[in-house]
Formats: sequence, structure tokens, C-alpha cells
Amino acid sequence: MVISQSMRIGMLGSKFMGRAHSNAYINAPKFFDLKRKIVLQNVCARNEASLKAFAQNWGWLNWTSDWRKLVTDAEVDLVDIGSPNHLHFEPAVAALEAGKHVVCEKPLANDLSEAREMVKIAKKHRKLKSYVWFNYRRCPAISLAHELIQAGRIGRVLQVRCVYLQDWGGPDVPLFWRYQKKYAGSGALGDLAAHSIDLMRYLTGDEVKSVNGAVLSTVYKKRLLPEQTKKWGRVDVDDISLFLTTLKSGAVASFEATRLPQGYKNHNKIEIHGDKGSIRFDLERMTELDYFDSDSSTNTQGWSTINVSEGGAGHPYASDWWPAGHNLGYEHTFVNQFADMVRDMNGLPPRTPLPTFHDAYEVQRVLEAVMLANREGCTIPLSQVK
Amino acid sequence: MVISQSMRIGMLGSKFMGRAHSNAYINAPKFFDLKRKIVLQNVCARNEASLKAFAQNWGWLNWTSDWRKLVTDAEVDLVDIGSPNHLHFEPAVAALEAGKHVVCEKPLANDLSEAREMVKIAKKHRKLKSYVWFNYRRCPAISLAHELIQAGRIGRVLQVRCVYLQDWGGPDVPLFWRYQKKYAGSGALGDLAAHSIDLMRYLTGDEVKSVNGAVLSTVYKKRLLPEQTKKWGRVDVDDISLFLTTLKSGAVASFEATRLPQGYKNHNKIEIHGDKGSIRFDLERMTELDYFDSDSSTNTQGWSTINVSEGGAGHPYASDWWPAGHNLGYEHTFVNQFADMVRDMNGLPPRTPLPTFHDAYEVQRVLEAVMLANREGCTIPLSQVK
Amino acid sequence: MVISQSMRIGMLGSKFMGRAHSNAYINAPKFFDLKRKIVLQNVCARNEASLKAFAQNWGWLNWTSDWRKLVTDAEVDLVDIGSPNHLHFEPAVAALEAGKHVVCEKPLANDLSEAREMVKIAKKHRKLKSYVWFNYRRCPAISLAHELIQAGRIGRVLQVRCVYLQDWGGPDVPLFWRYQKKYAGSGALGDLAAHSIDLMRYLTGDEVKSVNGAVLSTVYKKRLLPEQTKKWGRVDVDDISLFLTTLKSGAVASFEATRLPQGYKNHNKIEIHGDKGSIRFDLERMTELDYFDSDSSTNTQGWSTINVSEGGAGHPYASDWWPAGHNLGYEHTFVNQFADMVRDMNGLPPRTPLPTFHDAYEVQRVLEAVMLANREGCTIPLSQVK
Amino acid sequence: MVISQSMRIGMLGSKFMGRAHSNAYINAPKFFDLKRKIVLQNVCARNEASLKAFAQNWGWLNWTSDWRKLVTDAEVDLVDIGSPNHLHFEPAVAALEAGKHVVCEKPLANDLSEAREMVKIAKKHRKLKSYVWFNYRRCPAISLAHELIQAGRIGRVLQVRCVYLQDWGGPDVPLFWRYQKKYAGSGALGDLAAHSIDLMRYLTGDEVKSVNGAVLSTVYKKRLLPEQTKKWGRVDVDDISLFLTTLKSGAVASFEATRLPQGYKNHNKIEIHGDKGSIRFDLERMTELDYFDSDSSTNTQGWSTINVSEGGAGHPYASDWWPAGHNLGYEHTFVNQFADMVRDMNGLPPRTPLPTFHDAYEVQRVLEAVMLANREGCTIPLSQVK
Repeated sequence: MVISQSMRIGMLGSKFMGRAHSNAYINAPKFFDLKRKIVLQNVCARNEASLKAFAQNWGWLNWTSDWRKLVTDAEVDLVDIGSPNHLHFEPAVAALEAGKHVVCEKPLANDLSEAREMVKIAKKHRKLKSYVWFNYRRCPAISLAHELIQAGRIGRVLQVRCVYLQDWGGPDVPLFWRYQKKYAGSGALGDLAAHSIDLMRYLTGDEVKSVNGAVLSTVYKKRLLPEQTKKWGRVDVDDISLFLTTLKSGAVASFEATRLPQGYKNHNKIEIHGDKGSIRFDLERMTELDYFDSDSSTNTQGWSTINVSEGGAGHPYASDWWPAGHNLGYEHTFVNQFADMVRDMNGLPPRTPLPTFHDAYEVQRVLEAVMLANREGCTIPLSQVK
Repeated sequence: MVISQSMRIGMLGSKFMGRAHSNAYINAPKFFDLKRKIVLQNVCARNEASLKAFAQNWGWLNWTSDWRKLVTDAEVDLVDIGSPNHLHFEPAVAALEAGKHVVCEKPLANDLSEAREMVKIAKKHRKLKSYVWFNYRRCPAISLAHELIQAGRIGRVLQVRCVYLQDWGGPDVPLFWRYQKKYAGSGALGDLAAHSIDLMRYLTGDEVKSVNGAVLSTVYKKRLLPEQTKKWGRVDVDDISLFLTTLKSGAVASFEATRLPQGYKNHNKIEIHGDKGSIRFDLERMTELDYFDSDSSTNTQGWSTINVSEGGAGHPYASDWWPAGHNLGYEHTFVNQFADMVRDMNGLPPRTPLPTFHDAYEVQRVLEAVMLANREGCTIPLSQVK
Repeated sequence: MVISQSMRIGMLGSKFMGRAHSNAYINAPKFFDLKRKIVLQNVCARNEASLKAFAQNWGWLNWTSDWRKLVTDAEVDLVDIGSPNHLHFEPAVAALEAGKHVVCEKPLANDLSEAREMVKIAKKHRKLKSYVWFNYRRCPAISLAHELIQAGRIGRVLQVRCVYLQDWGGPDVPLFWRYQKKYAGSGALGDLAAHSIDLMRYLTGDEVKSVNGAVLSTVYKKRLLPEQTKKWGRVDVDDISLFLTTLKSGAVASFEATRLPQGYKNHNKIEIHGDKGSIRFDLERMTELDYFDSDSSTNTQGWSTINVSEGGAGHPYASDWWPAGHNLGYEHTFVNQFADMVRDMNGLPPRTPLPTFHDAYEVQRVLEAVMLANREGCTIPLSQVK
Repeated sequence: MVISQSMRIGMLGSKFMGRAHSNAYINAPKFFDLKRKIVLQNVCARNEASLKAFAQNWGWLNWTSDWRKLVTDAEVDLVDIGSPNHLHFEPAVAALEAGKHVVCEKPLANDLSEAREMVKIAKKHRKLKSYVWFNYRRCPAISLAHELIQAGRIGRVLQVRCVYLQDWGGPDVPLFWRYQKKYAGSGALGDLAAHSIDLMRYLTGDEVKSVNGAVLSTVYKKRLLPEQTKKWGRVDVDDISLFLTTLKSGAVASFEATRLPQGYKNHNKIEIHGDKGSIRFDLERMTELDYFDSDSSTNTQGWSTINVSEGGAGHPYASDWWPAGHNLGYEHTFVNQFADMVRDMNGLPPRTPLPTFHDAYEVQRVLEAVMLANREGCTIPLSQVK
């Protein structure tokens, strides 16, 4: 290991994503040979008091409540944007303009015009990297699925089915930012289906051609304002989003995202059917990939549950961590992505393709088309949404 | 047990459904106290030679290749129509006009106008029963789901998700009747989704209000003609059908049916989410019902896998068969339905509601709306489809 | 199909097994080409009143409360012994001496000396068949497992693990015959582990060499007498039986049987590990066989869940019943065995080896050795138990 | 958070356990409020060259190849022994004598006499803590099982079934230390069953009264010497270990451990049956606990699969990590244990009881009795093994 130079991080956000990303910065160098020293240089959040405790706990060298200072901090090489959706656009653009690499939480932006602009700026700065935290690409089971599909192990893809379910969004949850369009852009759609669309694109290499029907349903139309017991506000995003698409290849893909169905904690499920086999993944059992191989022995064909943890078997990322059968968890997806980002910034190939601003823009186009299809009650060709 | 009078069956069909129904007529009296002698009176199919062997094997007293004779046979009380879809309408109408009770395979008819007429005729003959073989209502696990939902055990229903997958329909299957609209009406839609729509209506008591998007995709557009090795014919029905609906209650329901996805043999899956819990069923594990109860102890909430086979626990139909844990199979659903039909014809309440021509007509309206939504590329209110 | 001659059955028993066997006699000719007419000739049970109703319901031509009459009935070809364990020996011997084929419920006898004598008599009558209802060999998934192991698909067998759990035997169950050694011979051991030992022998072709430790535990030592509310009697059989064995090949096998563990209805689980793969079966999901193939592609190795229902894939018994994915249940194992017995009596090979008195005697030797090992607290070589 | 004083670690070992423990020391302070600064003070391993790289990678301030220096290092508060089994005894005793707290990998020692001595020394130093890395107690699902059983949620425990399977130990694995008694004490027995025995004791609060039968089988009796292609050495430990026990309460427990069964990567499975319910855990699906509650509604009783990740539901350790449904993995069990050790050393109660030298000695007595029972072929009362 030669540490040629350091990689200094500046991060916006100190909540769930702030913790998950900090963890990645600390642990990636322990498990991967990054060939750079990783420095937790500067962190930004609005609440100064809690920010200091956060920074000290995670080992951030500096902290600030002014994101403009962070994104222009001369000591920062990579700006990580983990703030709510409406606070992606401005910092991302400013960071790129300041010559920083950027990695942004998903969905990329609060609306399509922001996303379009972000891609434009990113393209302008050819030497800078612009990544998005579509971290689930790096569940080892998902990365393996990518390898299998690329290698033709399920044949020609005919159909994709994505269902992303959580159950925390019942009527008792107050009207925090995720329930307001101005902060979140959309509800379960942007929060959850964005991941699914990215996974579909990543795994199949295909693109949505049209959205052929969409239902965005708001089940609980009013919610109590946060920290209030009597004042109610209007929810203007979806609780349940369902949509059907056709893909450029001629395949079809269906999507569903909601935070209501009782019993599902983090059921990010994707299933892909080819003419020679199928793959199936559920984030709640993230160490497993199910695979059906139509070319295997006729009398023993069945869904094979692969424990994707065996370095010696070539399972992605397995040899970086523990011996076979010693499970990884949620946060490892961020560690894996960060390790690949560093490889990429070092000019080395990532283990599996990294999600870029361009990828996230394509996702955002689909989100936009879904909202249009729901409003218009008719099919929306993606070509109309740019 | 008092056998007050006999119930004499006349059946059309001698293939898969002919066997499944014959089995029901033979076995129902062994396991249920029907209070009538069941007589396999007459059976009809086109091929005289194979028909005779079929009839003798199953114990049918008479056989004929002329369905008109069968439906007017004075010795027949109940006409069972198990022929392909395009051969439902005429025999059903003739049987009713001849004063017979009727039970018909699904989907009810080859198109909506036929179905409408069948319901009209059935209504005219108020004393005659008109049933449909939506047999999956009587999987004990499904019947239990009905009881739980009716009893409020999942609260208010918010969402239904139906997926019915089989994998026998690859490109090597020839162009037999199920791939031709004139015989089958539609593809996977009428074959499989018809079951799903019935289950949704049965389990929730709700009705489709509109179809908000549909994709009917024909993946293999040409198939070899049966018993040919060189001549190809055009497929004019769907391989994959996907559609989204909103229900009268405000809930949403999504549907999918296809005979292509590798790895699924008979995956008739339905999932229903309420605001107090969820239920989940998969025909491939038909003895199990999954139930999530949001009102159970907080720290042990989870998906409960119920082995629905325990008479002492009040599981539907369990005490009619074997001790707990001794699995029932596919054909038992027909036995259970026939036993309930006899109860009903005896003036006694069935264990769970029986599917009627009216039910099947409501299903057919949805099928029609799906085909319209697919053709028009826009939302179709059910009120427009009658 | 030529029905050359009839096969006339005489059966002892009218309870659970009486129903299961009657069902087999009625249905086997419908699904299998038996080349014989099956006649339900005569049935015997102690209670005359209920016996008549039973006989009429199932179509038995005659009935009697005197088993000696039944086993010598000149109109009977095959005697089926479905009575409690202490009523196997005498009727079986008498039937053989009267020149009848015999099929007996398991365990073969109430103790080893009876079993030894039964095998001796059976051997004497070389032209007569002596079968035992080890029906689980004919779960299609188990029959497939047999084929796979015979074909070397898991390599050399190293280890077998059998667990048979039911949960009906709690403290509220009265002291009926299964809790008394004089009627049942043993508790869960003979009731459940007998099946497991047969499956181990059938699947591996191996024999127990020694019992290396056994625990027979009676958790509820007193139970209320049947139809009593105050009088208690002593239980002298096991609630829980655990034992370890080594096999002649050098492999090891562990066994467990109990009717207490809450949550298991009919968990007859067997797992076999070879040096090239593993198989796993659970009767509660009896349509599935799990298979792990160490010779399959390295990066997709996993437990494959085979839906054993596909005639075209060569799954045992599948083409006799329904299309793929249409589940069989518990009672089909008896139908399958009876069909194979008729083939065998017709001089044709059964689909898979039939269990004979000899097989059941080998099982009984193991049961005896287990009781000895428990009593003596030391290893018992099977060679000492004859 | 007040960091009153630091906790300086000295660790032996730089392989698998060295990495897992280092990870715990780095991450515990990020996720738990430990009220102490954790210092990675000194690390010891034999290979100086690789040790330096290890130390630098993980942030150890010092390193040495002389364990005597490490255990007497004045800057060390807690000595962590992660070396092979035969290198536990001397360092542990020396560390205690030098006034250090100790945490030792399992099994505690290479034989019972060593373990006995270690407990004696630990007792002598009352102010010093002596822990053992029975880390699986702190899988959140296992900790929850402990809470449920303590709260009576499965009633009186009747039976325990432990099976620990891995499949890395085939004939191609060379004769490294785990296959030699002088280094490992035993094979799968001490490696895997030691965990199971600890879990049984922890979860039930019960103790083994006697070992009623044991089979220790060495399937591959010779293995190639490491880094040799021609020289073979003799294996003198077990490949497969099976044993039966009775517990002081009268309950029974069975155990199995092996590193051969194809298809199992880390199948540490424990099942506990009470008279009111059952619990079931499998490390390969470590985020889940299965629970069967005999007191729940009769018609919906089933095995409930609990996703043990919800802080708001009171799931152990959940609120320290991520929102519900965001899986933890293998290494978190060490982080959780270390956090509890620090609490304990701070005089605060751990979340769940910590495993001590005494616990590990009780485990070792069972291991010893198993080896005796296997050798003698008879029941060994634990009272004879001290």
C-alpha cells in the first residue's frame, strides 16, 4: 500500500445519511487498499450545537453551519451532499464550480430542471467526478446479479418487477420534510422508487421508453405539523406510487413504492426475468440472491438461494470483508461504494459501474414522467420528458 | 346422513378440468356429508374414442359427443362446463334454458357481451343456480384470509397486489387454443388474472373503479401451428399483462399475469395491506397463509406463517379432511367448492361465499377495461364498460 | 388398459388410517393404469354401528367386527392392517397363513420378537407380498431425492439428520393408546422416528451399525384417562426421543422425534449430506425438495428449492396427476404406494422400491436398540439386537 | 458524553479475529456513548513484517511480537486474546497477574485443566474483569430471544436443539492448526459447538447435567501438510461432533457441529421449545428471530419472523445503529459486546449478561464430557468432570 496523497472529504448532513457516510469514510481504508489517506476534513449542518458533538464523535476535523464555506473549503477534495432533497442543487453546483468532486444523495434533485442543470454543470467540468449514492448497487448480491445478467446467465431480459416497501409512514407520522413537495419533490416515489429505477437500469442496461400508467395515491391527506399536537397540514406527495413502463429493448418493467404496507421494514425487492432464467433480490435478506437457471439439469431446476459472501467463489466484495457466511449489513454498501469511488478517482476501474449524475438524471426523468402519467391519465413517452 | 335425493351431473370437457371436476364429484361425498347421492350421469367431449375411456375410468354412466344432448338430458340436474372459453356461452345458456343448474369454468365467456347475456339469462331463471369455478377461494388459506379480513384483523384495506406467474409459455409451445383470441378471448389475462381479480373482489368485498394503466405485451408474436414443424401462425393474445386499478373504496390494486417468468410453476400470489395488518398468499405454498398483525406485541411483531390445516383451530375445511399438518393439494379446492355448491343447492349456507355468474361478469368487465386501457393508452373508468 | 383380474381388499381399521387407505383404493385406479379392478371387499373394526356408516360412505361391500373372518375371507386378495400397533401381529400372521398378500401400518409390531416372527412367516410364503405403509417414500420429493442420491448427485453420503416434530401431544391430551406401551410399543419413537429410520435406509441404502446414545424422555408422566375428568394414569412411553447412530458405511445419522414442540404440525424433516452436495426435505412443504450441488457453477451455488411437480422434468409421479405447480397433498402418498403395490403384484417394477416386512423389521431393530441404549446408558451395536 | 478516562487495549492476534476485534474498538465509540476514550494501544503477533502493516492499517499505536511484553505493558488496561486456542492460557494468566482486564476468544482453553486454572486465577483477582468472546449473544435476535424466554414468553423450556454447520472443511483443506489437537483442543466441537453450548446456557439459564451419548467422527483422517503437495499428516480432531444432553431442569438438549455439510456457510442454528411457545434462530439470517406463541389467537398461530431491527419496538441494540430494516451484520456482534464490556467496566449494567471465564469454563466441562462420552461409549454425568 502506497498512500500517494490524501482524499479530503467535506460533507453536508449530520442525520441518518451523515452517520452512514461518516462510517464509510472511517471504515473503507481499513478493509480496502485505497492508496490514499482519507481525511474527514469538514462537516456542515444547520444546528451548530449538535453539529459539534456529531463532528467530534465521528472524527471530523472541522465543522461549519454555512454550506457555502464547506463547498469552497480549499482543504476539501470531495463534497458529499447528504442533506434533504431541496438542498442538493445549489451545493452540488457550487461544489463543481469550486473544482470539487461531488457525491450526492438520491434523488439527485427536487425536480427535473434542477437535475438537468446539474448534469450540464457536471459535464462542463470533465475532470471532476459526479457520483450519486445509489448505494444498493453494491449490495454484494446485487453486484453479483449484475455480473450474472451481463454474462448472459438469464438470457434476454423480458421483464422487471420492482417493489420497494417500508411501513413507517402511518397516520401518526407528522408532516416532516418528506411529506412536502417543496422539500422532497415527491413521496415514496423519489424516496424509494428512485432506488428501484436505478437498479433496473444498472442491472439490465436498459432504459425506460414510456410510462404506460401510474397511480400516485395519498392515503393520509393531512398530518399533524411536527412538534404540534393540534395543527394539521396538507400532504402533497404520494403515499403509494405504482407505475408501469416499457423499456427500449421491448421488455416491460413495473414499479411500486410505498411506506405504508404493514410488515415490511425495508423490502427493496427486484426481480428480473430472462428467457433463460430469473434473478430475485430482497434487501431484507440482503446477503442472499435467488437465481433460477433454465439451463441447469432438468430434474433439479429450482430457485437457488445464494449466500453471497464467499470470496473464493468470486462473490463481489466478499474477500474484502470476512470469511464466507459472515454477513454484511446495510452500511457496507456505502463503504463499498466509497472504496470504488476512490479507485475511480485513482484512475482504476471500480468493481462494478458507479452511479453518476447522468444516471440520476435518467432516473429523475422517469420520476417526472410518472407524475405526468398520473396527472394526465395516459401514457407518457420518455422522449417528451427532458 | 339422509340422502334425500340425488344430484346428477352432466359435464362438458375431458381434459385437465374434466379430470379435476370428476375427481371432485367422486371424492366430495366421501369427505363431506352432502345429504345427496352424487351421480356422474353424463359426460361430453368431441373425441368419441378417448371419451369412452375417460368416462369408464372416472365412472361416468353415459357419454356423448353432442353437447346439446347433454345440456338437455332429462337425467341431469347440474351442467358443468369445463370446455375451452369459446365453448362456454352457448352450452351455459342452453342449460339454463333447459332448467339446469350450471357451473362454468373461468373466465365466464370469451367477451363481455357474451358474459352480459349469460348473467341476464341466469337472472331470468331465479330458481337455478349459476356458479363459476373460481376454485381458489376454497384454498383453506384463502378462505381463512377472507374470514380474517371480514373480522377486521387487518383493519381498513389500503392496497392489493396480485401477481400470477407460470412458466410453461416459452417460444417452443405451439399455437394451441390459448394463444388465439377467438378461442381464449385473451392470454394470461383471462387465464390467470381472472383468478386474481376474483380473489381481490372476494377477499376485500371491493370493486374496481377504474383501470389506470395497462400493458399487454406479446413477447412471442408467432408460434408453430400444433402438430406442424414448419408453419407458423400469429399470436393475438398477451404473454404478459400488467395493470393498475383504483377501487371504489379508494384503495389501489395492481395486477400482473404471465406464463413466461422462469422459475414459477403456479405462483398465484395475492397480498393485501390494511392499516392494521397484512395478509399474503402464494399458491405454490398453498397450505400456508402469512399474516402480519400490527396489533400484536410490539417486540415480537413479524410475518406469521400459518399452517392452515388445523380443524381445532377453526381453519376452514380442515376438519373435513385430515389431522393438522397433513397437507391438502390443488384438487381439494374443487372438492371443497362442489361440497359448498351442494350445500347451497340444499338451501344451506356454504362455508364461504360461492362465485356466481354475476361475480364472473364483474371480472370480465375488468378484463375488458384492461384491453381498452392498453389499446387507448389511458385510464378507463369501469362505468364505461358494461 | 386391460383389466385382467380384480384385486380385492380387506382392511382392518376405520379411523385416520382407515380413511386414508380407503381413499387410496378409490383414487388409485382413476389416476394410474392399474390393469386390475380394485374392489373394496371387506372392512373390519370393533364398533359395529360406526363401522357400517364408514363402510357405506367409502363403498366397502362388506363389513365385520371379527378380524379373523376378514383375514380368512375367501373373497379377499390383499389384507390391509391399519389397526393400532398391538393389533398388527396376529392379523398379519393369520392373513399370510391364509394365503393373502398383506400391507401393514408402521411400526410393524409392538416389539422386536413379534416383528422377527412376522418376517419369518412372510419369508415362508414366498409367493405372497408383505408391504408396510412407509408412505413417505412416495412423496414425490422424497422419491426424487432417492433418484438423485442413487445417481451420485450428492456424492458419498457422510451424514444424515432426521427430525420429526408434531405438537399435538401437550399435557391436555388424555392417556389414549399411543401413551401406553402395551398398545403402542413406544411413544414418538415408534410413531414418528420409525418413518425417519425408514427414510434414512431407503434414501441412503445404508444400515445402522450402532446406536451411540439415546435419550427417551417422558415430560408428562401422568395423563387423565380418556373420558375421565379425575382419574390419572401413568404414561410409560417417550414424549421426546433423541438418538445418535453410526452407519455401516461409516457415515453418521442423528434422529429426533417428539410430539411436543410448539409450532410444528407435521415437520418430518430429513437432511442428507454427501461430499458433493446435500438434500433437504420437510413434510410441511412436501412439494419441495431442497438440493445443494457442489458441482454447479461456483458463483451461483446455493440451496435450490425444487417444486417437484413437473412430469416433463421427470419428477416422480408428477405425470400421473396434474400439470406442474398443482400441488399434491398428504393422501397422495398412499395412492402412489398402492399404485406401486399393484404394479408389483402384477409383476411390474414399482416406480421406486417398496417397503417390505424386512425393511420394517430393520427399523424395529433400531427402535429396540434405542430403548436399550437409553436404559443402559451406553452404545448398543445393532449386531446385538436381532 | 463525559470521557472520564481512556480504555487502552492490548491485543494478541492479527488474523480473522484480530480484524474483527480491531473493527469493534474503532466503531464502538462511534455508535455507543462509552464515556471513555478507546485507545488501540498495542498489538502482538508473530510475524513482525505483516504485523506492522496490520497495526498501521487499523490504527494500533504500537506493535510487538512478544506477547509477554504486551500483557505487561503499563499502558494497557484490557488484554484481548485472539490467538489460536493453545495460546490462550499463558497470556490470559499473565495478563490477570499483571493486573489487566482480559477478554479471551473461545473456547477458553485447550483443555479442561487450563480452563479450570484460568477461572481460579480470575476469581483471585476480584477487581479484574474476565470476559470471553461469545459474541453471538449479542446478535440482536439472540438478545431478544433471551428477553422473551426470561419474560416467560415460551413458558417452561422443555427442549433445546443446536446445530452449527459450516462447509469449508472438505478434504482439500490442509492440516492447519484447527486440525491438530495440540493447537485446537478439538475440531468442530470446540470451534463451533462451544458457541452453541454458550447460547443454550445463556438463553435458558440452565446447565448440562449429563452427556448421554456422543459421536465424534473424523471423516478425513489425513490431510496434506500446509504448503506441501506431497506430505500428509494425521488429523486428531473431529470433523463431525454430535451429542445429547440432559439439563438440570429436566429438559433435554441436542448438539451438532461440523464443518463438512455442503450448502451451509455459517448455519449457527438454535431452537428452543417451551410449553407455551418456541424460538428459532439461524445465523445465516441473523437479523431474524422466529417465534411461535401458543398463547396468540388460535386461528392465526404460526411461526412469526421478526425483523429484529426496530428501536421503537424495543429490539436490543437497534437504536444504537440504523432505522428499522437496515440490517446489521456479523461484525456488529463484537461491537455490541465491546460496548457492553465498557459499560460493565464503567460500573453500568450491560444490555444483556456478559460471558465470563466462568461461563466459558462451564462450556469447557461439557466439551470434556463429550470427548469422554465418545471415548467410553456411555453416559457421562457432568459432576464427574471438573
